[in-house]
Amino acid sequence: MTDKALVIFTPSGKRGHFEVGTPILTAARQLGVDLDSVCGGRGICSKCQVSPGFGSFSKHGLEVAEDAISEWNMVEERYKSKRGMKDGRRLGCQATIQGDLVVDVPPESQVHKQVVRKAAATRDITMDPATRLYYVEVREPDMHEPSGDLQRLAEALKIDWQVDSIDAPLPVLRKLQPTLRKGNWTVTVALHKDHADATHRIIDIWPGFFEGRLYGLAIDLGSTTVAAHLCDLRNGQVLASAGIMNPQIRFGEDLMSRVSYVMMNPGGDVEMTTAVRDAMGDLARNLADQAEIPLENIVEATIVCNPVMHHLLLGIDPVELGQAPFALATSDALRCAAADIGLGPINPAARAYLLPCIAGHVGADCAAVALSEEPYKSEDLVLICDVGTNAEILLGTKDRVLACSSPTGPAFEGAQISSGQRAAPGAIERVEIDPVTKEPRFRVIGSDIWSNEDGFDAVIAATGVTGICGSGIIEAVAEMRIAGLVDPSGLIGSAEQTGTMRAIPEGRTHAYTLYDGTADGGPLITVTQADIRAIQLAKSALYAGARLLMDELETDTVDRIVLAGAFGAHISPKHAMVLGMIPDCVLEKVTSAGNAAGTGARIALCDVSARTRIEEEVHRIQKVETAIEPKFQEHFVAANAIPHATAPFPHLSSVVTLPQVSFNTKGQEDGGRRRRRRG
Amino acid sequence: MTDKALVIFTPSGKRGHFEVGTPILTAARQLGVDLDSVCGGRGICSKCQVSPGFGSFSKHGLEVAEDAISEWNMVEERYKSKRGMKDGRRLGCQATIQGDLVVDVPPESQVHKQVVRKAAATRDITMDPATRLYYVEVREPDMHEPSGDLQRLAEALKIDWQVDSIDAPLPVLRKLQPTLRKGNWTVTVALHKDHADATHRIIDIWPGFFEGRLYGLAIDLGSTTVAAHLCDLRNGQVLASAGIMNPQIRFGEDLMSRVSYVMMNPGGDVEMTTAVRDAMGDLARNLADQAEIPLENIVEATIVCNPVMHHLLLGIDPVELGQAPFALATSDALRCAAADIGLGPINPAARAYLLPCIAGHVGADCAAVALSEEPYKSEDLVLICDVGTNAEILLGTKDRVLACSSPTGPAFEGAQISSGQRAAPGAIERVEIDPVTKEPRFRVIGSDIWSNEDGFDAVIAATGVTGICGSGIIEAVAEMRIAGLVDPSGLIGSAEQTGTMRAIPEGRTHAYTLYDGTADGGPLITVTQADIRAIQLAKSALYAGARLLMDELETDTVDRIVLAGAFGAHISPKHAMVLGMIPDCVLEKVTSAGNAAGTGARIALCDVSARTRIEEEVHRIQKVETAIEPKFQEHFVAANAIPHATAPFPHLSSVVTLPQVSFNTKGQEDGGRRRRRRG
Repeated sequence: MTDKALVIFTPSGKRGHFEVGTPILTAARQLGVDLDSVCGGRGICSKCQVSPGFGSFSKHGLEVAEDAISEWNMVEERYKSKRGMKDGRRLGCQATIQGDLVVDVPPESQVHKQVVRKAAATRDITMDPATRLYYVEVREPDMHEPSGDLQRLAEALKIDWQVDSIDAPLPVLRKLQPTLRKGNWTVTVALHKDHADATHRIIDIWPGFFEGRLYGLAIDLGSTTVAAHLCDLRNGQVLASAGIMNPQIRFGEDLMSRVSYVMMNPGGDVEMTTAVRDAMGDLARNLADQAEIPLENIVEATIVCNPVMHHLLLGIDPVELGQAPFALATSDALRCAAADIGLGPINPAARAYLLPCIAGHVGADCAAVALSEEPYKSEDLVLICDVGTNAEILLGTKDRVLACSSPTGPAFEGAQISSGQRAAPGAIERVEIDPVTKEPRFRVIGSDIWSNEDGFDAVIAATGVTGICGSGIIEAVAEMRIAGLVDPSGLIGSAEQTGTMRAIPEGRTHAYTLYDGTADGGPLITVTQADIRAIQLAKSALYAGARLLMDELETDTVDRIVLAGAFGAHISPKHAMVLGMIPDCVLEKVTSAGNAAGTGARIALCDVSARTRIEEEVHRIQKVETAIEPKFQEHFVAANAIPHATAPFPHLSSVVTLPQVSFNTKGQEDGGRRRRRRG
Repeated sequence: MTDKALVIFTPSGKRGHFEVGTPILTAARQLGVDLDSVCGGRGICSKCQVSPGFGSFSKHGLEVAEDAISEWNMVEERYKSKRGMKDGRRLGCQATIQGDLVVDVPPESQVHKQVVRKAAATRDITMDPATRLYYVEVREPDMHEPSGDLQRLAEALKIDWQVDSIDAPLPVLRKLQPTLRKGNWTVTVALHKDHADATHRIIDIWPGFFEGRLYGLAIDLGSTTVAAHLCDLRNGQVLASAGIMNPQIRFGEDLMSRVSYVMMNPGGDVEMTTAVRDAMGDLARNLADQAEIPLENIVEATIVCNPVMHHLLLGIDPVELGQAPFALATSDALRCAAADIGLGPINPAARAYLLPCIAGHVGADCAAVALSEEPYKSEDLVLICDVGTNAEILLGTKDRVLACSSPTGPAFEGAQISSGQRAAPGAIERVEIDPVTKEPRFRVIGSDIWSNEDGFDAVIAATGVTGICGSGIIEAVAEMRIAGLVDPSGLIGSAEQTGTMRAIPEGRTHAYTLYDGTADGGPLITVTQADIRAIQLAKSALYAGARLLMDELETDTVDRIVLAGAFGAHISPKHAMVLGMIPDCVLEKVTSAGNAAGTGARIALCDVSARTRIEEEVHRIQKVETAIEPKFQEHFVAANAIPHATAPFPHLSSVVTLPQVSFNTKGQEDGGRRRRRRG
């Protein structure tokens, strides 16, 4: 032990020599070690907890004595007895260096803590929210050196936290003076740092040390559903999630019908803007209720959405997005007051961040998918399909990323399907058809028991079997194709052709009976010819979009495929490939990312540096416009067949053999007659 | 003539060599010559008009040939025939350099044109408004290179006008797309450059070249009156002025009674905030009506006010300003959306700027007086008194400036005076009393004819003689003192003591009859003993404040005095000094600055660099708090006598000899009996 003691911090490995008596927090700050503190070292917040290590550290060539750290002081004693503290922990602001020391900073004491994603843990989120709490002690006013209370607060923030200049909106100014006095000149402020212009805005202020937490909303504003997560801005934890129907549905099911509504009804955009903003407010109230937190503690929101929703939310007439050249009013990321876009119920000074749009048809939702799945960092060629009412498609590697959108329509979401319904308890989500007997079995949402297993009746006693959801219809059609009930052109065979009475006539076409509950007053759930056609249109659009991007990259294969979207997690890769939704690929390389757009919104909420990152990446992503590309139409037509008219699916063939059936009795299809019913 | 031609610009004297064929505007820009242009050199706006000079310029050693400038081109011809152009003028963007040339830039073509102040032209305003018009041609959208319309507009502003980054509020985003298309991809934008953070905000956008003008409001928000000027932001011209009563008067005549109202009535601050914001909106509408301009073309507002009004306008409870240590919520200058503080009727994206406050009792109005009168640039010691319900007092030189406020009360504004009234037609504003006959004559507002002159009856036929305004009461009391009707202690003599029947008894005191209109059913206008007492209190407060600052600077004299305030222009320096409102000074060195606070607001409106200047200067101004200074009370008591109990007034004595009268019959005053009636 010399005059100065050597201190080594783990896990960073940062080290330095310090005078005996230096607080550990001070040493950490000087070395740039990531050690948290809200109260600025006053022994109030306990965020700076560390674990000193003792004994022999051969790796560092260090022998740490028990007295290398100061004894427990009163502040620590008080804190431990009042709130409890894990064994071996010390408060970094109180414990001082007495000799050579190894200090571990546990994950929860790091500012930029890593949070492991719960579902599909492909990547962690670094916590670095734009809005953070700062505790300060403010100089009292002195009439001989007059200065505003705000200016003395700014001074304290500058001295303690190196915050250069602050802005206070009027609602904060209004409560500033009583709060300072109530806290006896100590306050905690929620400070929002704008990543783009480095402005610090006071969002709220509380007397003394604020024991509460700050929350944020990650909102995925879809054409059909508005979904949001309420996140704890300290650890990224999702406290509550909720989704409501987009009330704009009454103006049109899909985006283009909403754009048409505006064209036909001047002022219709204002109605739609009001509707969606009201829904955002309702959702925020709902989430705060669920999590039992005060609405004012929600201080931020990030929003991802497609371009039409983006414009309608901002109050911009989306008419230009309905016609070439599909010009956006603004494509860059947008920061505004949350209250300006319907989030009035949360903190009145809360900020909102809308991710950037990529192009007129490729919105902030696609940017969010990119932020979540990071194709721009991928070593191998990845195809990412975000499947919803529109499909957003990304293809590329770290060298180059392409994007397009494709108008799949709502069939994949169970809409425009005869027995289709939204994913809810009672909806069929998994389907298997025996290739020999042609008998189906299925599972409904809310249970793991198959329909042919014991206990299924008990399962459905509560909900019934109500319809087929998006993933269910995909599996049903794919299984029908595998079982030889549907031919490559998409025709459903008759009972005679297929050998099952479940094939029933419906006008001049046929339908397949999945579930007949009519005896008990329940529904008859069938897959009709029209359903197959709707799925064919949707899957052809998705495939054609992906194929167009592959053309652009001059490749016929991709290394891996990521399925994203609200129901992406539920799509079975094999069935998606049987349908020909996606290009052929090694099956194990087809994964699901769940609601990647929502995840992107959460990342942007929890990690402000992600905003800068996606704003940069979006400028590098190359947009391919499907609407005017003649080859898109060509790919679309060829992709109508199940799985495809011309493309070989070698990886699929190695796993599944599709029966070479044909149910065309009119001879309109090549070799239709020849191949009749051989399954 | 060499390969390159020499071009000299006047009046700047800037010179340089340019290729033959270079447009004059291009040469001017390269040399940094102050030559205006809104359309960016497209021959549309005509702001770049110049006067080429021909012949011999011995000063420059230059011989300019007639063909040293290009011949008239079609654009110039068309412009001249359509709009007209002064002889000898050329469009700088069209005329090109053909040989050595001298080019004069007339004042109206300069960006930073000097505007001579109309009234009391002590200083000029440099035009450099925060909000300016820019004409741009925007690239059309290209679906193969997708970018938002806003991003392409930003690109055009960057290329043509070197504007680095722009911000567009939601109302502008809403109209962006239709405007660009209506203007066939040419637009004019009103861009507001924030002086503090260099942000450029789009305030509005018009299709094509906008022929209209931008306007701003300079608002002086007083305790009693809200006054505003509507200014043309191109040339600083005041198009309309209006004043309305501050509706907060119903909550209390003076500031402290309003603060008390809030203390007694929780939520009372909200009522007052609403009242004053509504008044601001009304005033804006009124001014736009008067000037017959669209409200949307008002794109900015600057506001000066005292601290209590400042807080109430911003929605901050002013309770802290009513008690030591008189802490402001915020003292710095404040920028916000104009709509947030009641100016909703003007352009929805308009910005507002509140000048900084100096201290809890010395507000943005005092800062505005400083900006207008610039004591911080003064070579000699200047005392500036802004006389209103509160007096703001500045004293200093370029080396050091002090400020204080003093609670004069509303007597100087004609309030709390028995026959007092606001300055309006019919109010007595000038008074003279014959020292021998003790007979008065007076003038009323709206006429130059004295009451003893022919034609006065005709003058008052319309308005009558209705009362005495602020400047009238000052002159009346001072003239009564000069005529020996009032003694140094402020007592009015009886008819017997003064020898005039105009001195009439009123209870145990006396009053002086200024005008008796009772015979015709008009008023009896007198100056009562209570009136004299009110004026004494007001003038003592003013003098004591000035004296306190002089103590601080350790001086007994000042070099010059500036009287400011709404009625500052009307106070006669001699009478002010007879009253002892102000310290003794060479009479010619007492000048009036009129409504200097309002002028300061106009300067901040027209010249954005003035905002930076006053923000810096305010930090250098040293505040002296009168409320807690024991010497203030001492000075106040000594200043009660007219003109003063102890201070000699040598300069005043050299001009006026005040009669040594005393009307105290009770022997309570020193030597009262001895000096009885010698006038």
